[in-house]
Amino acid sequence: MNAGSRSSVAPIGVFDSGVGGLTVLRALRAHMPGENFIYLGDTARLPYGTKSPQTVTRYSLQCAQRLIDCGVRSLVVACNTASASALPALRQAHPDLPIIGVIEPGAAEAVRVSASRHIAVIGTHATIAGRAYEQAIQRIAPDARVVARACSLFVALAEEGWVDGLIAEAVARRYLEELFCGPMVPDTLVLGCTHFPQLLSAIRAVVPAGVQLIDAAAATAQTLRRDWRLPVAGEPAQGSVRWLATDGAARFAQVGSRFLGQLLREDQVEIVDL
Amino acid sequence: MNAGSRSSVAPIGVFDSGVGGLTVLRALRAHMPGENFIYLGDTARLPYGTKSPQTVTRYSLQCAQRLIDCGVRSLVVACNTASASALPALRQAHPDLPIIGVIEPGAAEAVRVSASRHIAVIGTHATIAGRAYEQAIQRIAPDARVVARACSLFVALAEEGWVDGLIAEAVARRYLEELFCGPMVPDTLVLGCTHFPQLLSAIRAVVPAGVQLIDAAAATAQTLRRDWRLPVAGEPAQGSVRWLATDGAARFAQVGSRFLGQLLREDQVEIVDL
Repeated sequence: MNAGSRSSVAPIGVFDSGVGGLTVLRALRAHMPGENFIYLGDTARLPYGTKSPQTVTRYSLQCAQRLIDCGVRSLVVACNTASASALPALRQAHPDLPIIGVIEPGAAEAVRVSASRHIAVIGTHATIAGRAYEQAIQRIAPDARVVARACSLFVALAEEGWVDGLIAEAVARRYLEELFCGPMVPDTLVLGCTHFPQLLSAIRAVVPAGVQLIDAAAATAQTLRRDWRLPVAGEPAQGSVRWLATDGAARFAQVGSRFLGQLLREDQVEIVDL
Repeated sequence: MNAGSRSSVAPIGVFDSGVGGLTVLRALRAHMPGENFIYLGDTARLPYGTKSPQTVTRYSLQCAQRLIDCGVRSLVVACNTASASALPALRQAHPDLPIIGVIEPGAAEAVRVSASRHIAVIGTHATIAGRAYEQAIQRIAPDARVVARACSLFVALAEEGWVDGLIAEAVARRYLEELFCGPMVPDTLVLGCTHFPQLLSAIRAVVPAGVQLIDAAAATAQTLRRDWRLPVAGEPAQGSVRWLATDGAARFAQVGSRFLGQLLREDQVEIVDL
């Protein structure tokens, strides 16, 4: 492995606390099929969403270092919680490495599609407590009104695969009804956790018709394609992915296949220690 | 701190991946009010229930070492997942230290109360996959029939405080109905995760009347009181507790207060690095 090399053929590094970031990787591969990627899921210490900013930052710096040691040329923080807590520390530690999180692209897309500038954001406890989406939205649109709510159970529902039906809708209703009650409701809802797009149909069933749902994974992939894409001539026909996790190759492959939308085998996953 | 000392006045160490073990500590204090305890919640790496036996064992050895460095005279593994995965490694690493987990007492109590010897067990993914309860029950009662199911969402429901009502009962019904259908159903249900007693009323609402629910925390406290209790003359009137966590004192205190059944303040929690 060519440590530290970020030449034009070097891969893009993508990390997350676990499997949620595979939705980001899936969008990246759809937009940039010729790229090579290295994905790292920190499954030994997931989830990040209930942990303190200090701990999430420490774990994120370790994930980034491992990917840099593997020779990545740029870094995608494919986890809303890590993007909310650790992006400044990551950029300070690695000033020459292009680093993108999922929050800024998600916030920009929300502002772009919201006519009323009244935007709802849902995420993990840590992402919502840190107010990162509110700040990112209001940096672009200072007049925007943002309401936010942590929806911790959505993560467990997505991991369990209970993504639609009675229970998923009842949970979605309990979390979301307070954001969408009253005469003036948001016209846009940011799914500020990479697990949440799995619950799209349950969320759609309980929010008012016409509310636009923003998937930060897709917005991030679009931003990356615009900013980081190599000239077509330099790309191989079909890029590769190297899969790293810090624990449980079998579970990573099993749950991850749902998030990735394609079969991932246990023997494709390398276990690494951070 | 008198490292390594396990004299008659030394405290009992109790550890868990987070706050769930506080239900065990609560039962221990009720049974042994004069004892001093040190509780360690590994909140930086919780939950253990979705992780591999190797990783849970590594984390458990680190928790135990920290408590031993604090001078505990014995150790309670107040986490079903760690009891299922790490007890042999803990006893091998510390052969002179009395160490008890929650599975053996829970299994013994289930065998004691079950008339039909047909016992159901619920727990985390890791506890159920490791079959530790089945093995512990069948060591005592080789003729026992054990059925088991992982109930991962119960952990998230308990942490969120959604412990009764429509959603908790719907989740309980979905997990438990397959264990309690047909003409011959278990007469005993072991709550094999320290989070699950929080959902007692929802679980009771969906299992057949007459099924005995076994709380491993209470069973462990009874076993400890019998085996480890000091002579009354040697005990102070009211024992103390020292609170350690590896992340997030505010969240540990807030969520932990529900599990402990008494108010725990953020400034009582010491953050330690393992």
